Amino acid sequence: MPSEATMKAALQAYLDNFNAGNLDGLVGLFTDDAVVEDPVGAPAHNGKDEIRAFYADALKNGARLSLSAPIRGSHTNAAAMAFEAKVGPLTVRIIDVMTFNDAGKFTSMKAYFGPEDFIQAG
Amino acid sequence: MPSEATMKAALQAYLDNFNAGNLDGLVGLFTDDAVVEDPVGAPAHNGKDEIRAFYADALKNGARLSLSAPIRGSHTNAAAMAFEAKVGPLTVRIIDVMTFNDAGKFTSMKAYFGPEDFIQAG
Repeated sequence: MPSEATMKAALQAYLDNFNAGNLDGLVGLFTDDAVVEDPVGAPAHNGKDEIRAFYADALKNGARLSLSAPIRGSHTNAAAMAFEAKVGPLTVRIIDVMTFNDAGKFTSMKAYFGPEDFIQAG
Repeated sequence: MPSEATMKAALQAYLDNFNAGNLDGLVGLFTDDAVVEDPVGAPAHNGKDEIRAFYADALKNGARLSLSAPIRGSHTNAAAMAFEAKVGPLTVRIIDVMTFNDAGKFTSMKAYFGPEDFIQAG
């Protein structure tokens, strides 16, 4: 099991790579057979090829991610964070939950946000 | 599937009932066969009797819960919230994820926090 510090650093790296538009860095955080459900309730992206395609598309909108509160760990191989994604005047309120393999890579990611978590400024 | 507003109201009711020390109100938010994993990584509490015993004990410490950021929904029967539990000088940073049945009751609850999410004031 990765340490709590390792897991939290990986979640921070997820935000940093996303904000830097670093697709390789972002995809490199996941295992080859990881599963991404973003948002929870939508069809999952299974495995690195689908995950790469998903984030290549996601990075195109130029969203900026920022934590709403400090990242939370767990008593096993999981961690979670509340953050906001800002795209122009639009803010999306999200909570991500990641699970990990022993090497500290994400085996799964679930993004919790609903239609009512999109906030339009002004 | 319950509406996003229904799910978010149930999470708020969880905080409110906890803060009011209302054990019946708290336990009444769950289905009879719900599963509570608090924290994630600890043995689960299965079904209403175990859940009642868990919260009867949890309420004894007089923790006060407050949201760290607005509650998030999802595109299916799940919602999540980042909050803090304060017990005297101790603060625990937590993210809870709940799933729901069609009647808007919790079928599961997972609480994400690790040993490093306990913050001692001063």
